[in-house]
Amino acid sequence: MTQLDIATDETERLIASNKVEGTAVYNRDGDRLGSIMNFMVGTRSGKVEYAVLSFGGFLGIGNDYYPLPWDVLTYDTHQGGYVIDMAKEVLEKAPRYSREQEPRFDRAYGEQVYGYYNVPYPYL
Amino acid sequence: MTQLDIATDETERLIASNKVEGTAVYNRDGDRLGSIMNFMVGTRSGKVEYAVLSFGGFLGIGNDYYPLPWDVLTYDTHQGGYVIDMAKEVLEKAPRYSREQEPRFDRAYGEQVYGYYNVPYPYL
Repeated sequence: MTQLDIATDETERLIASNKVEGTAVYNRDGDRLGSIMNFMVGTRSGKVEYAVLSFGGFLGIGNDYYPLPWDVLTYDTHQGGYVIDMAKEVLEKAPRYSREQEPRFDRAYGEQVYGYYNVPYPYL
Repeated sequence: MTQLDIATDETERLIASNKVEGTAVYNRDGDRLGSIMNFMVGTRSGKVEYAVLSFGGFLGIGNDYYPLPWDVLTYDTHQGGYVIDMAKEVLEKAPRYSREQEPRFDRAYGEQVYGYYNVPYPYL
């Protein structure tokens, strides 16, 4: 994620998890892809392994969940949301899961997800 | 934080931010200290710099907020919440802020907070 311009807010260098949850995600064309449901954080590392994009239904009902590497997201003050540089069609083929079928979030899954976005997977 | 025993849940290795928010925090004596309000995450690093403990009022109203280094918290399956190894009196003197007066979360603040808990501050 890129640093923001707002100097006195925590959004400059830090961002509050509960403010990110629900924030819209767009692509470069301005298409709204969905919104951030939550972060998946390494219990030992304290590092965000995925920001989970909710896409489809309405805030958790009937949605698909797309785990995204943190670095894929850039905050865009103009859009007032996160931007990922990806066509909607690419996202539609991305690794996803339903609420009923959460993945194990193990190393193999991480490599699959990060690989899809061409980001090296740092096992945390 | 310590790894949990539950093998198939994401709580084994990863934890969802929105599940942590609202989770109770206890000390070693079993005193309930408050609950986790949110995580403050480095926008560049993707690392949780603080887990913010809400203490005093009721879920955000009239509360004080105690930013805690991630490593201070340990999940305790028995308690069903986080445990910090600290007397209530120690927490009462810890760095805190009110909703109306959020700190800048800069390096000086980080060193102050982490220093209070005797954790080296990794500027993220």
